[in-house]
Amino acid sequence: MDYKEYLSLLPGPVSVPRRVMNAMLKPIIGHRSREFKELYTRLQEGLKYLFKTRNFIAILSASGTAAVEFAIANTISNGDKVLLIDTGFFSGTRASKTIEAYGGIPIHLKAPLGYAPTYDDVMKALDNHRDLKAILVVYSETSTGVLVKDLKDICIEANNRGLITIVDAVSAAGGVELMVDDWCIDLCASASQKCLAAPPGISFVSISEKIVEEVYRCKPRSLYLSLREYLEYSSSSEVPFTPSIPLFYALSEALDMLVEEGLENRIARHRIISKAFYNGLEVLGFKPLPRLEYRSPTIVAVEPPENISVDKVVSMLRDRYGILVARGMGELRDRIIRIGCMGMISSMEVFYTLQSIENTLIEFGCKIEPGSSVLEASKTLAGSLCI
Amino acid sequence: MDYKEYLSLLPGPVSVPRRVMNAMLKPIIGHRSREFKELYTRLQEGLKYLFKTRNFIAILSASGTAAVEFAIANTISNGDKVLLIDTGFFSGTRASKTIEAYGGIPIHLKAPLGYAPTYDDVMKALDNHRDLKAILVVYSETSTGVLVKDLKDICIEANNRGLITIVDAVSAAGGVELMVDDWCIDLCASASQKCLAAPPGISFVSISEKIVEEVYRCKPRSLYLSLREYLEYSSSSEVPFTPSIPLFYALSEALDMLVEEGLENRIARHRIISKAFYNGLEVLGFKPLPRLEYRSPTIVAVEPPENISVDKVVSMLRDRYGILVARGMGELRDRIIRIGCMGMISSMEVFYTLQSIENTLIEFGCKIEPGSSVLEASKTLAGSLCI
Repeated sequence: MDYKEYLSLLPGPVSVPRRVMNAMLKPIIGHRSREFKELYTRLQEGLKYLFKTRNFIAILSASGTAAVEFAIANTISNGDKVLLIDTGFFSGTRASKTIEAYGGIPIHLKAPLGYAPTYDDVMKALDNHRDLKAILVVYSETSTGVLVKDLKDICIEANNRGLITIVDAVSAAGGVELMVDDWCIDLCASASQKCLAAPPGISFVSISEKIVEEVYRCKPRSLYLSLREYLEYSSSSEVPFTPSIPLFYALSEALDMLVEEGLENRIARHRIISKAFYNGLEVLGFKPLPRLEYRSPTIVAVEPPENISVDKVVSMLRDRYGILVARGMGELRDRIIRIGCMGMISSMEVFYTLQSIENTLIEFGCKIEPGSSVLEASKTLAGSLCI
Repeated sequence: MDYKEYLSLLPGPVSVPRRVMNAMLKPIIGHRSREFKELYTRLQEGLKYLFKTRNFIAILSASGTAAVEFAIANTISNGDKVLLIDTGFFSGTRASKTIEAYGGIPIHLKAPLGYAPTYDDVMKALDNHRDLKAILVVYSETSTGVLVKDLKDICIEANNRGLITIVDAVSAAGGVELMVDDWCIDLCASASQKCLAAPPGISFVSISEKIVEEVYRCKPRSLYLSLREYLEYSSSSEVPFTPSIPLFYALSEALDMLVEEGLENRIARHRIISKAFYNGLEVLGFKPLPRLEYRSPTIVAVEPPENISVDKVVSMLRDRYGILVARGMGELRDRIIRIGCMGMISSMEVFYTLQSIENTLIEFGCKIEPGSSVLEASKTLAGSLCI
């Protein structure tokens, strides 16, 4: 059971720096101790920096899905209508299932594949559905690499209209601009194993004052995901249930690294690195799934050249070059390849991956100009300060 | 933020062997990979061994509270009555809150402090409440150290009467006899950071065939805690949501250690070590909270001698001797001291802790026969093969 150390370019979990991994070895402490309170306080500060918020942040020992469910569980009740900006599996199927579990009614607003609904599309939907309780947006859709580029204006206007705004920023926070307070996001969820490059197992939700005030009015429908419990324990810098201590340490270290790099620098790095990936891959005949202005900088999603199967590329990258990338989900399973462009990603990973894909295509008999994708990536990266 | 390495005799999380901690450093792998499937399969085998069951086990990236909630979320609906064997905070307040979150009606069956309801008490309650849907028992109550000694007969008879049997074995599994299949336990929950001595953050629930068959009949009220999702993904040896990989590795290592020691040996070790603790502490004037036959071997709960405050003992053990023990919860906060007697606990911890308590009491002016508690513990341990 001693597995190979792959380069994980999965759409999460991504490779974790040694420094963050080692942080897990710090002593096991009690979660009602002064040491834990200090750790908790540091995490709150780091996450507020990540989200650009002054809001309270609930820190869950659970995956990103639980964080999104937390947002829904504490706001959506029987019969509440929620507008879903549906751009793939997480914003479609999964968000829908979760809303239904709490008795809510999801209303899907879809755009053609590779696009996201725009501000105007959403406003039209808001006009058509006057009885909405909330709007749920997956900012960066992990299953398609589509970014809801108008998130800011959508949330501000939805908030103006009195709606609760829920944003799933699981594969966005730390990789693309996100300003929870300025953009009027009531509940914003993310997780440890994406742009923060920490191990999976922790997720977090920022919660606006408006939601905090409302939560005592309705009956909790879960204990583990009850905002009330998190608020109550937070007053003494604690979490209500036994936290996964080693993962808290790792997240704290990962947040230190974020502060050291600077959030803006990290966002710029994700932008330029994903651009280098897309440009290099296009030279090799891969077709980007998301249209240019709808591309999330954190998930590169491409269709392989004709006659080259997704399966072949994914297996070859894994078995020969030790690189983990993912196939599509659901209907897109055999159609696209997804490359997680998150965390400590740099030009090193871009060049190594493109060279490996070039070699793979050559082996499969494709006519490739040797070095062409690497050259293209290099041109893209020329002059950039954050690679 | 480099904390002291305490000896954690908390009622969880307990100290974790270096070997288990180091297992967390294994490579981050994808949760849809063949490596993960292998890891998942090993965990299933290890946990089936722990629970003495052939049932499916849902493995959650979440705390023990979530595992108990999982059991409730998939079985209890609006108006369902659940008999609670109430012996403290977890079986009283917390179980009650969780049942109510799902619309259930908790009916508390209490015994005097230090006792648990017996088989006869429970049967009387079952006779009085003919419309129960389920019975929920916290086998070893972490807040009081009380063991429901008649668990076996209670569950078998409750099952005979058509009730769903839910057992919270969070601080019991691995430390006291527990036979999920033979005792007819439909849902049995436990967690990583107690008798298995793994880091906190993973919990698990074994689910009987009867429950699996029923689950498709009712609408899920959670996604993260939906048994359907866990069953569906289990068919390909996966979990539905991104798992906390490092903690999965650690749990696997901890289960290897359990198999190496042998479950029966570990249970015998917990029994003799807790007895040594109780006997040594009684010599020093501590009063056991649970009556003799109701003592859980995993949580030692005692009242300090007159004029010695809980606070003083807890602080002195932590600050001078580096030993973490816990105070009581709720009403018992200033009345009892709780010593977690779980995991890799041995005579070493007993002697060191008793000596430290002796010294503490002497410092506080108590008249103590030097060495008396250590001698008593030594007598208790004499001849034992598992210390």
